[in-house]
Amino acid sequence: MRRGGTLEIDHALEQAAGGDAFVWIGLYEPTEREFDAVRREFDLHPLAVEDAINAHQRPKLELYGETIFMVLKTAQYVDSNEVIELGEILIFIGEGFIVTVRHGEPTHLHDVREQIEGQPELLKHGPAAVLHAIVDRVVDEYGPAIEGLSDDVTEVEDEVFSSGMVNRAERIYKLKREVLQFLRAATPLAEPMERLAHREHPLIDPEVRTYFRDVTDHLRRVQDQLEGFRDLLTSVLEANLSQVGVRQNEDMRKISAWVAIAAVPTMLAGIYGMNFDHMPELSWTYGYPAVLTLMAVVCLSLFIRFKRAGWL
Amino acid sequence: MRRGGTLEIDHALEQAAGGDAFVWIGLYEPTEREFDAVRREFDLHPLAVEDAINAHQRPKLELYGETIFMVLKTAQYVDSNEVIELGEILIFIGEGFIVTVRHGEPTHLHDVREQIEGQPELLKHGPAAVLHAIVDRVVDEYGPAIEGLSDDVTEVEDEVFSSGMVNRAERIYKLKREVLQFLRAATPLAEPMERLAHREHPLIDPEVRTYFRDVTDHLRRVQDQLEGFRDLLTSVLEANLSQVGVRQNEDMRKISAWVAIAAVPTMLAGIYGMNFDHMPELSWTYGYPAVLTLMAVVCLSLFIRFKRAGWL
Amino acid sequence: MRRGGTLEIDHALEQAAGGDAFVWIGLYEPTEREFDAVRREFDLHPLAVEDAINAHQRPKLELYGETIFMVLKTAQYVDSNEVIELGEILIFIGEGFIVTVRHGEPTHLHDVREQIEGQPELLKHGPAAVLHAIVDRVVDEYGPAIEGLSDDVTEVEDEVFSSGMVNRAERIYKLKREVLQFLRAATPLAEPMERLAHREHPLIDPEVRTYFRDVTDHLRRVQDQLEGFRDLLTSVLEANLSQVGVRQNEDMRKISAWVAIAAVPTMLAGIYGMNFDHMPELSWTYGYPAVLTLMAVVCLSLFIRFKRAGWL
Amino acid sequence: MRRGGTLEIDHALEQAAGGDAFVWIGLYEPTEREFDAVRREFDLHPLAVEDAINAHQRPKLELYGETIFMVLKTAQYVDSNEVIELGEILIFIGEGFIVTVRHGEPTHLHDVREQIEGQPELLKHGPAAVLHAIVDRVVDEYGPAIEGLSDDVTEVEDEVFSSGMVNRAERIYKLKREVLQFLRAATPLAEPMERLAHREHPLIDPEVRTYFRDVTDHLRRVQDQLEGFRDLLTSVLEANLSQVGVRQNEDMRKISAWVAIAAVPTMLAGIYGMNFDHMPELSWTYGYPAVLTLMAVVCLSLFIRFKRAGWL
Amino acid sequence: MRRGGTLEIDHALEQAAGGDAFVWIGLYEPTEREFDAVRREFDLHPLAVEDAINAHQRPKLELYGETIFMVLKTAQYVDSNEVIELGEILIFIGEGFIVTVRHGEPTHLHDVREQIEGQPELLKHGPAAVLHAIVDRVVDEYGPAIEGLSDDVTEVEDEVFSSGMVNRAERIYKLKREVLQFLRAATPLAEPMERLAHREHPLIDPEVRTYFRDVTDHLRRVQDQLEGFRDLLTSVLEANLSQVGVRQNEDMRKISAWVAIAAVPTMLAGIYGMNFDHMPELSWTYGYPAVLTLMAVVCLSLFIRFKRAGWL
Repeated sequence: MRRGGTLEIDHALEQAAGGDAFVWIGLYEPTEREFDAVRREFDLHPLAVEDAINAHQRPKLELYGETIFMVLKTAQYVDSNEVIELGEILIFIGEGFIVTVRHGEPTHLHDVREQIEGQPELLKHGPAAVLHAIVDRVVDEYGPAIEGLSDDVTEVEDEVFSSGMVNRAERIYKLKREVLQFLRAATPLAEPMERLAHREHPLIDPEVRTYFRDVTDHLRRVQDQLEGFRDLLTSVLEANLSQVGVRQNEDMRKISAWVAIAAVPTMLAGIYGMNFDHMPELSWTYGYPAVLTLMAVVCLSLFIRFKRAGWL
Repeated sequence: MRRGGTLEIDHALEQAAGGDAFVWIGLYEPTEREFDAVRREFDLHPLAVEDAINAHQRPKLELYGETIFMVLKTAQYVDSNEVIELGEILIFIGEGFIVTVRHGEPTHLHDVREQIEGQPELLKHGPAAVLHAIVDRVVDEYGPAIEGLSDDVTEVEDEVFSSGMVNRAERIYKLKREVLQFLRAATPLAEPMERLAHREHPLIDPEVRTYFRDVTDHLRRVQDQLEGFRDLLTSVLEANLSQVGVRQNEDMRKISAWVAIAAVPTMLAGIYGMNFDHMPELSWTYGYPAVLTLMAVVCLSLFIRFKRAGWL
Repeated sequence: MRRGGTLEIDHALEQAAGGDAFVWIGLYEPTEREFDAVRREFDLHPLAVEDAINAHQRPKLELYGETIFMVLKTAQYVDSNEVIELGEILIFIGEGFIVTVRHGEPTHLHDVREQIEGQPELLKHGPAAVLHAIVDRVVDEYGPAIEGLSDDVTEVEDEVFSSGMVNRAERIYKLKREVLQFLRAATPLAEPMERLAHREHPLIDPEVRTYFRDVTDHLRRVQDQLEGFRDLLTSVLEANLSQVGVRQNEDMRKISAWVAIAAVPTMLAGIYGMNFDHMPELSWTYGYPAVLTLMAVVCLSLFIRFKRAGWL
Repeated sequence: MRRGGTLEIDHALEQAAGGDAFVWIGLYEPTEREFDAVRREFDLHPLAVEDAINAHQRPKLELYGETIFMVLKTAQYVDSNEVIELGEILIFIGEGFIVTVRHGEPTHLHDVREQIEGQPELLKHGPAAVLHAIVDRVVDEYGPAIEGLSDDVTEVEDEVFSSGMVNRAERIYKLKREVLQFLRAATPLAEPMERLAHREHPLIDPEVRTYFRDVTDHLRRVQDQLEGFRDLLTSVLEANLSQVGVRQNEDMRKISAWVAIAAVPTMLAGIYGMNFDHMPELSWTYGYPAVLTLMAVVCLSLFIRFKRAGWL
Repeated sequence: MRRGGTLEIDHALEQAAGGDAFVWIGLYEPTEREFDAVRREFDLHPLAVEDAINAHQRPKLELYGETIFMVLKTAQYVDSNEVIELGEILIFIGEGFIVTVRHGEPTHLHDVREQIEGQPELLKHGPAAVLHAIVDRVVDEYGPAIEGLSDDVTEVEDEVFSSGMVNRAERIYKLKREVLQFLRAATPLAEPMERLAHREHPLIDPEVRTYFRDVTDHLRRVQDQLEGFRDLLTSVLEANLSQVGVRQNEDMRKISAWVAIAAVPTMLAGIYGMNFDHMPELSWTYGYPAVLTLMAVVCLSLFIRFKRAGWL
């Protein structure tokens, strides 16, 4: 059951009390002052409140008395500059209430609210069901980010091993940086999820626990994939080094081979450019064409040889 | 005991109930609708059903009440493009039934069925025996894939250290990618296998547990080998870098050495091509042959020296 | 409650005894003799005293009977030479007293004292509250150091991938050294903090424990970030190698390409510089301009070709 | 007490039963048929029997009811091709019997038999004493293999850092491969040894346990050394890359420096080979020797300069 | 209390028995025969005795009944060849006796004896106090070795990043080898120390345990520092590769740039060395100086350009 409209926060809990009803308060980057009424009404712990206002926390799950405080990182892949944009959702749940605080560009909790309102059988599990719905949504949204990274990794692999001569060190490095950052945002979540899935907690129905286990499983898959990307990118960076080195060296070898070919007629011409009085070849009628032919033959045979050695 | 033919799913369990009989239902990439009758008949958990339909799960073992849900990855080595093709088998077992869902190109469960039907003493252990037979088959089929990778690793080693000049970075990298992917598909299986082998579960006979322990052992061997490949390929990639670098440098040195040899007669020829009025050598009768001889001697001695230094 | 002024150490404990009062004694790099009175008054363990005087300890938490002995590392980022300067604070707390010993350039405990005196509700938790205040301050001051390192990492990334040709190996290496050193100073602190946060200890109020948990969390974030820097710097060092290699090779290729272009007219000039009696071109009226034109055409076409190949 | 000669396997156990006597049956690469009588007499588990016949197992220790099944890897260093040759010993021990199955080129168990027969005080501990004697022998024989590898590592280090110009990438890589393979053969043994040393088992006397602890210790030392080799070889491979790179570059620099020296007289000669009508130097009496001297001076000064820079 | 002079080993224990007295027997590389009397008198376990005679053990702590057997590695830094020289001390302690066996060039236990005799309050804790004194001394002596390595690491860093052109791969590698060896000698000691510090043992007074905890702490610091060196040296080896590569490439570029500069006048001279009948420039009065000027201008402008590009 849900009651819309503006509710006086001061009496939120009162109205929720009794029955299965609970209050869901959603805030976006609140200031300390804005948050104060909420803090007082639900008796939230000052340390958790401080975290909720300043954000930039690691994903974590803390228990302050009966209240559960959870920090989640949302991830969104921005294709234009190949960056993972992280947001943050901080959630308090207690007997009869759930408070969500969003920072950055996070998941649209609005959709979650609509979705969960359509499943009254879930809603009756209380705030824990909402917590699950949010976490599930956040982790589901890791999917497209993973896809985006996966595409980029494949692209960068193709580039590195294509015949074109591009040094992809920068792109590889930046992708790796995103992967590492994403890992740091997603991985620490697994441990608190696991705890929610396996330990008893008065706020969490045994039935809902199964759902948290499912989320944990999704998270482990995300972690597996990200660690896979990290390992691949490390290898690609190394492969890139050898690919670029090889291609550049091929250029140098080609240039040097041509210079070597040109050195032979230059040397021969030098010899017949000497000013000795007695150089019989110089007075031969066909001396000049003979030398030109010699030059051509030597150059051609060198050319063929270098071609065969794969140098040209 | 086995009863063939088309059975109405709706009454499958009924028929199985009583005695040691059980139903085995095998599906291939079912849609949600196709799976619905099965789900209802055996009362499968919606989360597990969702996994079974969408596939792309990590290997895992979950307990939903009395039902065991297991996800397996099958692996097949495709020699033509040196790729490990992964499939997926998802298995539900419960009192009196086993449901298998195949995705991708997995193991032919048909053979497993025939094989297990020929061992009535196993069949009497119920669905757990079938579960073991499938898992055993899947892990056994890792063998040829490992063989295929092993051959490729050996081939690539030979190529890297052969005298031919080939940069194998791409092949090494792609092999490593396959190995990492295979590791991700096989490794997480060890932990649930271990659990089946060591913990009590009403569906699993103590006698069958020994067999799961054996599978665990096979899995650990697969893991050992794959990790071995990974480590070797990492080293080969590095060795490849130095091998290629060395060979390319040898080419450059050879070309440069020849250019250096050619530079000497060019210089000498230049000197005797100068137009000074007073250059006594020019008028010597044997000046020209003497200079040619000098050139030959210098070039030859350089050639010998470079040859000895291993530069040519 | 706080009593200022110079107190006779010999009777410090006596005066503190009774009620919630406690003594806070702060020392800066004391000699053994200076520390002796303190040691005797509070009955400190000789091993801990030795550590407190010599400093250069790992961060740790030791229990000597009822007394808690803690070693903390302070960190300060010195931007001018991109160095993390470490200091050390060693703290003894016991029933009715807290002794702090500072070494190096640590946190100004004076501020901590003022801050804590403004929060009488904290002060009533006794020495443990002071311990928390100090630890909290030390860990908070890691923040700017992390910021400093973060800026440097970003700077060095930009330098490595900029088009300018700079080898940043030294800077990257030195940053990495600072990060590793900082990690060694901050990481071992997490474990004793965790212990203070989760285990029972007569000196530490359950209420204060929550605060130590918060510090632990900050520490984990510091560790996450430092490990992130370490991983990034490792990758940047590798990327730097390939970037520098690529740029240098481009220079060499450019120089070689120009030498190759110059080799062609040199060769042609050599040919027409030969002294054969019968070289018909030499007597042509337009032979000279024709050859010059040929040279220009060849050089130009080479130039265009090399330009297109990206060599010039 | 020991009874030689051919014993009917079918009654082996019968004869051993009663008193401390036990049967030791040794087999070398038996077929399934050959092994069948043994299997039946001692009631060995079919899974262990399958392992014993097929070999290629990981080192492990399994309990099948009262029977202990152990897989050991033997290692022998073949100096001629620097390869570790692995063999396999599979051992079953139970009340009153020990069955050993050898595969490949393993330890000569004959010696072990003789040695243990000379120590009746050990023999009275039953099959466990034999198990220890075999394991001890196998681990002792790792010693010479470690020695062989150690010598090779030292040799390869010397080669890499000697002034000679050899690329040792292949040798280093192959040594590393052997070390990794050896590690995989020796390391998994430590865990089952530890178990034999610390846990209770009816077949294993507390007194014998001390001996298994000693073997565990030897194994840890082997592991330490092999991991040390692995780390060293990884570093040597990297050092080799820079050593080879440096030496090759030195060659190129030397060749280029000589070409640069030769370029100067070539240029000067070219200038005085020009055909201008008015070139006063050409008619000077000492023009020619003066130019020759100039060439010599320039070349010499370049030579000295390059020498000083360490380029020649 | 201490009694000097030669004591009959056979009755050593007898004399020590009763009261707090105990016997300390120190041996240096004993043979099996020499050690035999000791073994019999104190009833030492044959496996421990074997270890004590052969040495080359890993650091460890074993319990043989009531007797504690400990293996320690001593480390000494030999500056002349930058090598860590390891020795070994093996210690047996039991009720009323301590036996120390030294191998290699270990700590002068003589000093330890004198020092401990000056602290009768320690001596009354029995052999455990002596054990602590020895271990403490051994670990303290790691300090100078760490210092020596630290200096070398700093030196090698300076060398790698100095402008001089030296390839330090060999020195870095050898330092790393020493660090790895030292780590293997010092690290395994931490675990048995920890055990002595935290577990109950009849021979070890609770009061002495605090002292073992202190040693453990020193050991962890040693380990931290050695692991720090290892990580730094790994990075320095990589940095060295890029530093050396960069410097060598700079040389090549410089040489090539000079060759390119020389190529221009050579080409121009070649052109005016051609023998065409109609080359108007040749007959100009100022043709020769004009060409020389042109050469100079071109060379100078190239020189300036290359200088600006940082190539010369």
